[in-house]
Amino acid sequence: MALSPYQQLEQEFRRLHAFHGAASLLRWDAAVMMPRGSADVRGEQLAALETECHALLTSPRVSRLIERAQANEAQLEDWQLANLREMRRERDHSIATPLSLVSRLAKATSRAEVRWIEAKEQGNFALFAPHLEEVVALTRDRAQVLSKALGLAPYDALIDEFSPGFLGAEIDQLFRVISRRLPNLIREAIELQATRPPVPIATRVGPARQRALAVEVMKALGFPFDRGRLDESAHPFTEGVSGDVRITTRFDAQHPFVGLMGVLHETGQAMYDLGLPEAWRDQPVGRDRGMALEESQSLLLEMVIGRSRPFIAYLRPLLEKHFGVTGPEWELENLYRTLTAVRRSAVRMDADELTYPLHIMLRYELEKRIFDGTLAVRDLPEAWNEGFDQRLGLKPENDAEGCLQDVHWAIGSFGYFPSYALGSFIAAQLYESMRSELSSLDEQIAAGQFGGLFEWLRQNVHGVGARVSSQELITNATGKPLSAAPWLRYAEAKYLEP
Amino acid sequence: MALSPYQQLEQEFRRLHAFHGAASLLRWDAAVMMPRGSADVRGEQLAALETECHALLTSPRVSRLIERAQANEAQLEDWQLANLREMRRERDHSIATPLSLVSRLAKATSRAEVRWIEAKEQGNFALFAPHLEEVVALTRDRAQVLSKALGLAPYDALIDEFSPGFLGAEIDQLFRVISRRLPNLIREAIELQATRPPVPIATRVGPARQRALAVEVMKALGFPFDRGRLDESAHPFTEGVSGDVRITTRFDAQHPFVGLMGVLHETGQAMYDLGLPEAWRDQPVGRDRGMALEESQSLLLEMVIGRSRPFIAYLRPLLEKHFGVTGPEWELENLYRTLTAVRRSAVRMDADELTYPLHIMLRYELEKRIFDGTLAVRDLPEAWNEGFDQRLGLKPENDAEGCLQDVHWAIGSFGYFPSYALGSFIAAQLYESMRSELSSLDEQIAAGQFGGLFEWLRQNVHGVGARVSSQELITNATGKPLSAAPWLRYAEAKYLEP
Repeated sequence: MALSPYQQLEQEFRRLHAFHGAASLLRWDAAVMMPRGSADVRGEQLAALETECHALLTSPRVSRLIERAQANEAQLEDWQLANLREMRRERDHSIATPLSLVSRLAKATSRAEVRWIEAKEQGNFALFAPHLEEVVALTRDRAQVLSKALGLAPYDALIDEFSPGFLGAEIDQLFRVISRRLPNLIREAIELQATRPPVPIATRVGPARQRALAVEVMKALGFPFDRGRLDESAHPFTEGVSGDVRITTRFDAQHPFVGLMGVLHETGQAMYDLGLPEAWRDQPVGRDRGMALEESQSLLLEMVIGRSRPFIAYLRPLLEKHFGVTGPEWELENLYRTLTAVRRSAVRMDADELTYPLHIMLRYELEKRIFDGTLAVRDLPEAWNEGFDQRLGLKPENDAEGCLQDVHWAIGSFGYFPSYALGSFIAAQLYESMRSELSSLDEQIAAGQFGGLFEWLRQNVHGVGARVSSQELITNATGKPLSAAPWLRYAEAKYLEP
Repeated sequence: MALSPYQQLEQEFRRLHAFHGAASLLRWDAAVMMPRGSADVRGEQLAALETECHALLTSPRVSRLIERAQANEAQLEDWQLANLREMRRERDHSIATPLSLVSRLAKATSRAEVRWIEAKEQGNFALFAPHLEEVVALTRDRAQVLSKALGLAPYDALIDEFSPGFLGAEIDQLFRVISRRLPNLIREAIELQATRPPVPIATRVGPARQRALAVEVMKALGFPFDRGRLDESAHPFTEGVSGDVRITTRFDAQHPFVGLMGVLHETGQAMYDLGLPEAWRDQPVGRDRGMALEESQSLLLEMVIGRSRPFIAYLRPLLEKHFGVTGPEWELENLYRTLTAVRRSAVRMDADELTYPLHIMLRYELEKRIFDGTLAVRDLPEAWNEGFDQRLGLKPENDAEGCLQDVHWAIGSFGYFPSYALGSFIAAQLYESMRSELSSLDEQIAAGQFGGLFEWLRQNVHGVGARVSSQELITNATGKPLSAAPWLRYAEAKYLEP
């Protein structure tokens, strides 16, 4: 029997999925295993795969099949309809970025990234500025084309690539509400914590012991080591596909919780990937619902669960077992205070849960102003330092700790930063609903039983894949659209606890 | 300026090279890093890449470009002409194996491989026989199609895939000459060695120490660890591309030379890959000249150089340094006797340099008879055991140690075995020429200086790529076509030394 247009599309996207999986493995290998001198060769391989994916998505055949499948939508089931919609969305994104623009952007961003490293090392923004200007100009072109294709405002079109279903206006509104309360909340939390400072942890713990602990925790969380790996790399990340998920972390002997928290963060994302709808795992509708949702899963595990008393209660005997440590600094309450300490700092990557959203809001505001032309790239350092001072009450010592700290703009990732904060808000809203439905959640976590937690997430988040929009997913899971209230409730309860 | 048809072909084959490199990395990962449960996912990724390569090679566009480039051959330089010839050869192989046949063979061989494992474990050939019959029937079909496309006899067409430029008739002739002398040579060598048996080596050496030794030796040989890796896997192998070559070995604490010899074997192939003509590394003419030449580089390093007195003289202080060993069993002469011991045995993988060709000749004879229909698959065990007894004077204890010992037939690799023996003969012929040109080769090797050796190989073998046929390459390098005489001279001198 001949395949229907829709079925032929499934075949094409199955091929695309295989190429994406191959590319992901190549990236994992580049960060974890590859010899340093092989970057050029790997670059050629990744470019060939990317070009192939682009060619597939922009082929007249795929567009023709999409039209024909749309004409017969009545014959499709719910999941298939959603799959067709996601196919179209991916096609639109690809067509909107012609290879010539992709290639100009690739060259501009790789130049900009090299200059960003130099500029950061030397604390000299001027070295980087002209290259950032070029990237901004090209990204503006890209946003214009995307805007037309997707029927979204240019900046919204950029957001759509990372966190589909969120609009700039919604993010503005969330950030406004949070902004009204957060600076005071931070001040109050810091004052309160100053009255009961934790005993500092000074024990050095070698990477092998840290790894053994991380593996035991991952197993307890349900990470399947027969379909995934844990390795080390300069920055923690997750790569791979649903049947082969690979996370990394970085172990630091002087800071024995950095590696574990990286592991929790990445395991959150990995469990999302592993819980995606099995029957659709090689189709667009079987993918995760974008960066904001992904980040929510990471932060739920690292911040909300991982830095809670029940989790630390579960962790304590494991610390004794693997690190061989006892003493006052390793008592539950002291660990809890250590892991929830609030501190204003210049660098986003080191920021705590409470100050983190302010870092994001600054970047979001600045990149929107750069985009609409009300802020010139050359004025970025000044605007950064002023904005930082306003929000966090401190000035970065130099641009390396200021507007040069992140690679994202150099590589053209505009519209990406908001997803970090959205992830935090989504995590809090999901957590509130989960707690109200799972009455003994705390007891389960303290006992190292995470089955109920992940069962809830699989039903409400992981197993949904990309079947509905981000906002629908959140509404279905929690009974209401995303709002700032749950996060504020969560933050107040946690950080202003008497 | 518009690209010429030939230049367009170079572009297409550059893409093919990138896909081959990605597939190679995926295979490496599957054997060294991949979680066990991810085989299905990896299989899909590899199949997608393979299908893509097949589609590229069999596309009407590529065939049209080849025709147009051939019509303008007068404008091409020497290397370009050779490249065009290799492009055509790859296209012919691909067109001759339509995807339907590839897919039927893939299914039949993966079934056959599973049954082969079972049959070997249970020593029950009957479990495997029907599946082998199916693979043989499909491979016969494939050989017929290939035969027409390449203008070669069917079995020669199979050989052409692995060792282009060698014909069955030439191999027959080489094997006849070797056969006349080899059985007696083995008998004489064993009698002679019995008069001076080595002191057995019973020291256990942990894998970390073995690895440290292997890395030091690889560095001395010139293996660039910034463009390659050494890892461990169940069976040693080499994967990767010219700019990122990865070898593996297997360390066995009870047999401290097994891992090192595996490393020498694979480093021989790796140095070939690394020495391929840089300017052509992403084109067909820049590839190695097939299995027989590849094997010659492996055996030259593992057998000819690695089991020679000068090399062992270089190795001795390293054994003391890394293994911390001294005593009579670690003296030069004792190590030399240990590493050159001749012993008739049932299993090819364990065979020494001298008995090895007999293992290959048996397989070669049997697979030709299966192919031309004079031997039925069900009669293979009997024919194997008889042939083995005739050649090596011993009968395998069971089929697991007999006709079931190798995976090659299960996976449809007919025409592959001869390259193992050809590699040995080529190595000896190259070595004879190299020695006559490099007067102080032994002294250099004893001093751990391998620059002269590899410089000779780069000029005469590695740097040639696939510019000429296997036979031309050998004739250019040694002044005469491949013959059995150098190997017999080498073997007599080494194993009948008074």
